[in-house]
Amino acid sequence: MIELPDQFVFNTFMFLVWGSLIMWMAAGFTMLEAGAVRTKNASMICLKNIGIYSIAGLAFYFVGYNLMYVDVGDLWGSFKLLYGPSADELALLGGDAGAADAVASNGYAVLSDWFFQMVFVATAASVVSGAIAERVKMWLFFGFTLVLTAVIYPIVGAWTWGGGWLAQQGFQDFAGSTIVHSTGGWAALAGVLVVGPRLGKFRSDGTVRPTPPSNVLIVTLGVFILWFGWFGFNGGSQLALGSVFDAVAMSNVLVNTNLAAAAGVLAALAVSRSVLGRVDLFAGLNGAIAGLVSITAGPDITQQWWAVIIGAIGGVLCTLGIKALELAKIDDVVGAIPAHLICGIWGTLATAIAAGAQLHIQLLGVVSVGVFVFITSFIVWKALDITMGLRVSRTVEQLGQDSGELGIEAYPEFVLMPENFDE
Amino acid sequence: MIELPDQFVFNTFMFLVWGSLIMWMAAGFTMLEAGAVRTKNASMICLKNIGIYSIAGLAFYFVGYNLMYVDVGDLWGSFKLLYGPSADELALLGGDAGAADAVASNGYAVLSDWFFQMVFVATAASVVSGAIAERVKMWLFFGFTLVLTAVIYPIVGAWTWGGGWLAQQGFQDFAGSTIVHSTGGWAALAGVLVVGPRLGKFRSDGTVRPTPPSNVLIVTLGVFILWFGWFGFNGGSQLALGSVFDAVAMSNVLVNTNLAAAAGVLAALAVSRSVLGRVDLFAGLNGAIAGLVSITAGPDITQQWWAVIIGAIGGVLCTLGIKALELAKIDDVVGAIPAHLICGIWGTLATAIAAGAQLHIQLLGVVSVGVFVFITSFIVWKALDITMGLRVSRTVEQLGQDSGELGIEAYPEFVLMPENFDE
Amino acid sequence: MIELPDQFVFNTFMFLVWGSLIMWMAAGFTMLEAGAVRTKNASMICLKNIGIYSIAGLAFYFVGYNLMYVDVGDLWGSFKLLYGPSADELALLGGDAGAADAVASNGYAVLSDWFFQMVFVATAASVVSGAIAERVKMWLFFGFTLVLTAVIYPIVGAWTWGGGWLAQQGFQDFAGSTIVHSTGGWAALAGVLVVGPRLGKFRSDGTVRPTPPSNVLIVTLGVFILWFGWFGFNGGSQLALGSVFDAVAMSNVLVNTNLAAAAGVLAALAVSRSVLGRVDLFAGLNGAIAGLVSITAGPDITQQWWAVIIGAIGGVLCTLGIKALELAKIDDVVGAIPAHLICGIWGTLATAIAAGAQLHIQLLGVVSVGVFVFITSFIVWKALDITMGLRVSRTVEQLGQDSGELGIEAYPEFVLMPENFDE
Repeated sequence: MIELPDQFVFNTFMFLVWGSLIMWMAAGFTMLEAGAVRTKNASMICLKNIGIYSIAGLAFYFVGYNLMYVDVGDLWGSFKLLYGPSADELALLGGDAGAADAVASNGYAVLSDWFFQMVFVATAASVVSGAIAERVKMWLFFGFTLVLTAVIYPIVGAWTWGGGWLAQQGFQDFAGSTIVHSTGGWAALAGVLVVGPRLGKFRSDGTVRPTPPSNVLIVTLGVFILWFGWFGFNGGSQLALGSVFDAVAMSNVLVNTNLAAAAGVLAALAVSRSVLGRVDLFAGLNGAIAGLVSITAGPDITQQWWAVIIGAIGGVLCTLGIKALELAKIDDVVGAIPAHLICGIWGTLATAIAAGAQLHIQLLGVVSVGVFVFITSFIVWKALDITMGLRVSRTVEQLGQDSGELGIEAYPEFVLMPENFDE
Repeated sequence: MIELPDQFVFNTFMFLVWGSLIMWMAAGFTMLEAGAVRTKNASMICLKNIGIYSIAGLAFYFVGYNLMYVDVGDLWGSFKLLYGPSADELALLGGDAGAADAVASNGYAVLSDWFFQMVFVATAASVVSGAIAERVKMWLFFGFTLVLTAVIYPIVGAWTWGGGWLAQQGFQDFAGSTIVHSTGGWAALAGVLVVGPRLGKFRSDGTVRPTPPSNVLIVTLGVFILWFGWFGFNGGSQLALGSVFDAVAMSNVLVNTNLAAAAGVLAALAVSRSVLGRVDLFAGLNGAIAGLVSITAGPDITQQWWAVIIGAIGGVLCTLGIKALELAKIDDVVGAIPAHLICGIWGTLATAIAAGAQLHIQLLGVVSVGVFVFITSFIVWKALDITMGLRVSRTVEQLGQDSGELGIEAYPEFVLMPENFDE
Repeated sequence: MIELPDQFVFNTFMFLVWGSLIMWMAAGFTMLEAGAVRTKNASMICLKNIGIYSIAGLAFYFVGYNLMYVDVGDLWGSFKLLYGPSADELALLGGDAGAADAVASNGYAVLSDWFFQMVFVATAASVVSGAIAERVKMWLFFGFTLVLTAVIYPIVGAWTWGGGWLAQQGFQDFAGSTIVHSTGGWAALAGVLVVGPRLGKFRSDGTVRPTPPSNVLIVTLGVFILWFGWFGFNGGSQLALGSVFDAVAMSNVLVNTNLAAAAGVLAALAVSRSVLGRVDLFAGLNGAIAGLVSITAGPDITQQWWAVIIGAIGGVLCTLGIKALELAKIDDVVGAIPAHLICGIWGTLATAIAAGAQLHIQLLGVVSVGVFVFITSFIVWKALDITMGLRVSRTVEQLGQDSGELGIEAYPEFVLMPENFDE
């Protein structure tokens, strides 16, 4: 039996280390997206992503955490502003050593948990920017991010991790296949539908115009960052380290996470030839994300071969999803919807097969979160569009947001191929 | 109460984990700088930065640590060479299990602290290279780095963290707004003044010639790396983890660090339109660094909204500083002086407002460190300049240090825009 | 004395944190290699590397770990498939709290060790891809990777870390100078000899055609990632954290690792002028890897100046090795053989000087691992070559594997210099 103060330090340090690693995922999303868009929009993606992370952190501090975790009823928590250390912690920090026992009995430092939860909301918001890249005005995108991170995501979180109605039904989502990734995915889908595809992406003859990525190395770097950060994302979601049980469980979580990602890569590569017509690097890279999202609802399973299967199916679904979106003429620039929404749903349902969850409750969670996030997001996107026009002007879109809106190009000294808009 | 051996392991492991993360900041500086300079000097920045980190580590091993931390009087510590494990540790490693108690009573492994302090000196040195980029000869820059990391920084450190005269006055600088960042900033300012602006940077008609960054994605990556690494930089500066108190304090530190950085980004973006004439990506990115440097002197404050305010003011000051340097015709290539020097001063003074430090002592620290570092740095730069000529030849500067001095270009296969020197 | 459950958590968490950092080295190899090859092959390197990491992880799960660590005789372990938690762990996870003591007595969670060992096999495999870049077909390379990670590496590991015949002789290799790095290096050498140099690399007049790296910044990033990750690689190889002894030893390991790398950089830079004719960035960057590989066999030495010497000699040997390979007309694209094979041998022998190992046993280990890995690798490469043709067609090689084999270019929008094959 580990004593309380030791438990406290283990749990707290674990939140801080894994939380830092999750913050690093913000860099992963940035690189993945900036490398995947056309060069003329890559700087804008950089700015949007550092903006997302900043807005998410402040919104969660001012509003989100309380709404998600404090005094949660069925639907939401508290509407009070700001968050901070507990009274016991303030006493301890203020010099009252006698408060240490009371602090320790909480199991972890209050702000270490806040930190860990904050990087989760940032992750959900990061999913959105890639899908709707290259055509949405920066400030309106930031406005949507604010609503998503201050209100929409915290309400979904209150239903589930906060102890609200879905949690009471027995809904299981270990690290957020639905709560984080599908939430981001639904918000992205709503945005993509409101703003429409990029100019010329879908030609009048029904074919799809390829849009070259600016930088394949940077996309790959982004995927590796995400994979690395996911060890914190899933591992830390054990929410404790200070017992033999938790240490064993966390080890299983990391191993399953890695196996699912590896299987996702290889499965996506294997089917890419038949689905997309060639062995496709992007399919393989997205396969890693797909495998990771798929295992996120139940990475604590004890039979590792299930992780391999779940990840592999995720990789296949993601590749099929990329194709399906093209057929539906939905323009998701980086494949965020297949990787995060489709695989988020798959992973949530898979826990009913592999991890003992109840299928109908998992379905209930998937559908209710989907309906809520999609509708609220759609309303916000639409309101922004009607009042201020979500989309950049035709001129800015053709020129690129970098020089058109931001006045800076990603690689100003390099000579680029001329783009042919009549193509 | 956590027992001594457990405390020892907590503290030691914390130094190693956070110290590794700080080492990673060296990559952040490298990317930020290499992406921000013109393409023709990007390889040289890479070489200079890996050189800095290597020199700093060896200098601190041979000389610096002893000078900063061992037998410190008012002004400096010991002049003996080399550093190593304690006698108790050597006994323990040599097989004397009975030495474990004596080792544990030290609180942490001697070399884990050395490791942690070593990455700090590397950070101070990294600040310099960006400011004076594109015009200083490599070997002379390395010579300056050696003096800075072996002598100048350790003396500043001896005054403060080593327990010297400033510490005795009650000077507070939790993780080094002054000790690390301003020290780097003053050394950079001295260098910039000695070597002068880049050719053609300030036109005869009083306007400033824009110098395009080589790679905006890489700059952004660098900023994310620094933000990530700063969790180690500030978090580890709690210097202990093995108690409930320390774990709570460290959690506060990470949260404040993140809030200040986020506020710095958004504040810098908000004012960039009025100060610089447009929403500026570089201002936003520098705003993150500014927020981080600003909170570094007092990240342990218990009222998180102060962190937001301190970071936001840092972001504004940094943006104003970029403009002010331009008006003063001081050519700081990456904005290191506004971000590290100006915000380092601001952060150090802010602790008197938010964290209970005495304003006059904080001012004394700022001024005395500033005077000492600026003057000694100026003398070293000037001596190097007079004896060997700090600046590369006009031909090398026009051609770029990559092909002129190093014989390798950053992207040899890419076609670049021709540069117009008469512009 | 730290109690058993606390020890268990320390050891397990250490494996997870350092193991995650080692996984990140896969990104380092990818960046180093993708930046070092010509632009026309950079995407293929990205795909190969994410493929390697995925294959290695699955192969080690299905076959490798059991072969390396379970029921090891003199030569190999068990041939059974799959791996998973211990029976005690399954009981504990299944709700039997009474199993905690039995679990704790194992010292660490079974899968945390698996995770840590898995990232090692991935590292060995990563060494290969850079050396044979730009000319080997993707699927055949993946085939070789499968054999290497499922069979060859695990057998070497069984001889040594698994407790087989070499371990019984007293062979010392703390974190794998021989077991990981030389194994990768020998496999690479065999591959390079079978497939031959790139088209036009060695001209008929005896001169060497320079092949420009695609992206120097990305190479540098890769080296920093590897250096960062190496703290996990060597630090975690202490294999325990839960005692004062282990915490002290791990601190020494990190410090020595850093000192050796720093010395490697500076030594390589210093000799590059005389060996290669100029101060060479790549020599300096490879010097870091060289220093790191060199110290890997004995980073636990207590006299830090030995680490400086060992690393510096490694840096020199690597630079000489690059030159020697050119003279021998062996085409190793990224210098993997000098850095990993030559320095791996040097580091293994150096432990006899600095860390008390027996020279003849170290030599025995170097030679026997070398003979085994080189011969088995050579046979596999040759078999692949004879049956399916290892090498891409002349057309694909001239065009580049990116557009020729993969249908995607690394930077499709950028204008590249025309390549002159008659040069």
